[in-house]
Amino acid sequence: MEKNRKNTPREGLRSRRESLYAAGERYERETAGREDLLEGKNAVWEALCAGRQLDKLFFASGSIGSVGHIVARARKQGVPAQECDRRKLDHMSVTGAHQGIIAVAAAAQYASLDDILALAAARGEAPLVVLCDGITDPHNLGAIIRSAEVAGAHGVVIPRRRSAGLNAACAKAAAGALEHLPVARVSSMSSAMTELKRRGLFLFAADMAGESMYQADLTVPAALVIGSEGEGLSRLSRELCDVAVSIPQRGKISSLNASNAAAVLLFEALRQRGAQ
Amino acid sequence: MEKNRKNTPREGLRSRRESLYAAGERYERETAGREDLLEGKNAVWEALCAGRQLDKLFFASGSIGSVGHIVARARKQGVPAQECDRRKLDHMSVTGAHQGIIAVAAAAQYASLDDILALAAARGEAPLVVLCDGITDPHNLGAIIRSAEVAGAHGVVIPRRRSAGLNAACAKAAAGALEHLPVARVSSMSSAMTELKRRGLFLFAADMAGESMYQADLTVPAALVIGSEGEGLSRLSRELCDVAVSIPQRGKISSLNASNAAAVLLFEALRQRGAQ
Repeated sequence: MEKNRKNTPREGLRSRRESLYAAGERYERETAGREDLLEGKNAVWEALCAGRQLDKLFFASGSIGSVGHIVARARKQGVPAQECDRRKLDHMSVTGAHQGIIAVAAAAQYASLDDILALAAARGEAPLVVLCDGITDPHNLGAIIRSAEVAGAHGVVIPRRRSAGLNAACAKAAAGALEHLPVARVSSMSSAMTELKRRGLFLFAADMAGESMYQADLTVPAALVIGSEGEGLSRLSRELCDVAVSIPQRGKISSLNASNAAAVLLFEALRQRGAQ
Repeated sequence: MEKNRKNTPREGLRSRRESLYAAGERYERETAGREDLLEGKNAVWEALCAGRQLDKLFFASGSIGSVGHIVARARKQGVPAQECDRRKLDHMSVTGAHQGIIAVAAAAQYASLDDILALAAARGEAPLVVLCDGITDPHNLGAIIRSAEVAGAHGVVIPRRRSAGLNAACAKAAAGALEHLPVARVSSMSSAMTELKRRGLFLFAADMAGESMYQADLTVPAALVIGSEGEGLSRLSRELCDVAVSIPQRGKISSLNASNAAAVLLFEALRQRGAQ
């Protein structure tokens, strides 16, 4: 009775609406552009054996036998695998025959940090790299990759977890930039940051509380570290950075969309590097 | 028979998938965030009578009687009204009782060009305005409004048709900027451009073929005209502009996401205007 009394029709509608929105947003995020889905045991297994890069794998709760075997191999190859409700797989499925397993193929091949630094060296330029620390919206990630390519940066680095991957939605937002710009996916962002520092890059944290980007010297070998839309940079990332840089603010609200912030910082670096 | 032979199972699946994607994208765009829906004859009529600003109105094909009456009043008040299939209304509806009519309420009040110029005058600054000519993605429009607010611009202008409006998805992407920055919605973009020129503003078309933004003087009273994601600026808009300005390019792809382009131009204007 207590439970029923709490749930007035109005609250019931509200909670139904909220859960509909939440489900809709999740669905929209996870299934935006579906030409990159591999469904069923054979398709996923063959892709793994062929070394095709997979962004993520979803498998039905309580899977045993061959699905469990595929999941184990995927994890061994570094593919994040997520257990989920069978109804979610039904919902994602285009073919209607997923056999309890669906993989999201990467829309582009991932590169390595070496590839990125090699590109800078080949061009005879001081490296300019964007580190996306927790950008979960594939449209934002795609827009950042696009801006980085246009600005002449040498690559983008994303973490394997808690980040959008190079899925179809990201590829669409990147508008062709994935064909030209190396994107590296790393297991640990902090290890990547340490490695880039060891290779001579300065790490600039994008942070509204930092020094003005006009005071910072962005002509040095540079990695711009952009935090997540919701929470900004993690404490660890911030501590690993050499300096925090800010974009000037004249308004009342205090932060930009992550891709807009990345674009403004990238083009300030380009200006300092002599763009006319 | 000819028809059947053309439609192989594979083509059938492909076209089914494509139409699913297309429908999904439309649905996502049109219903992203639904706390702003007014459903049913009474709700829409009362909102119109109270002068509440409506972004758009959808009504079932073949409506006569009271729905026709409401549509006529809405159009008289300048609200774009679109006839659509009843199933689409069923799909949009949260309450399940739309009676053949659903209105999308604006998430914020629209301002006028006068409001925008008055804000610049009150701050004693040369006006800096962004004209969004055909930005149909509410997330992009919201991000532009957010960047404009942070950069200290005085307002954003959007056209009534072929543009995202200030709906809930846009408001969310604007992250609070709608509370501080006037956004004007105009019936004719070219009339608005002519009016702003008459009031002393220079019109800068964002165009990758224009002169470099570093060569342009953005300290003058300025309107930055940003074209649609797909097609760029219309010929008419381009012709009405005083000068075309470009963002430097170092990569192989040739254009930025609309909100990223707007952010880069806005912050270049801010830099020229003395931001430290």
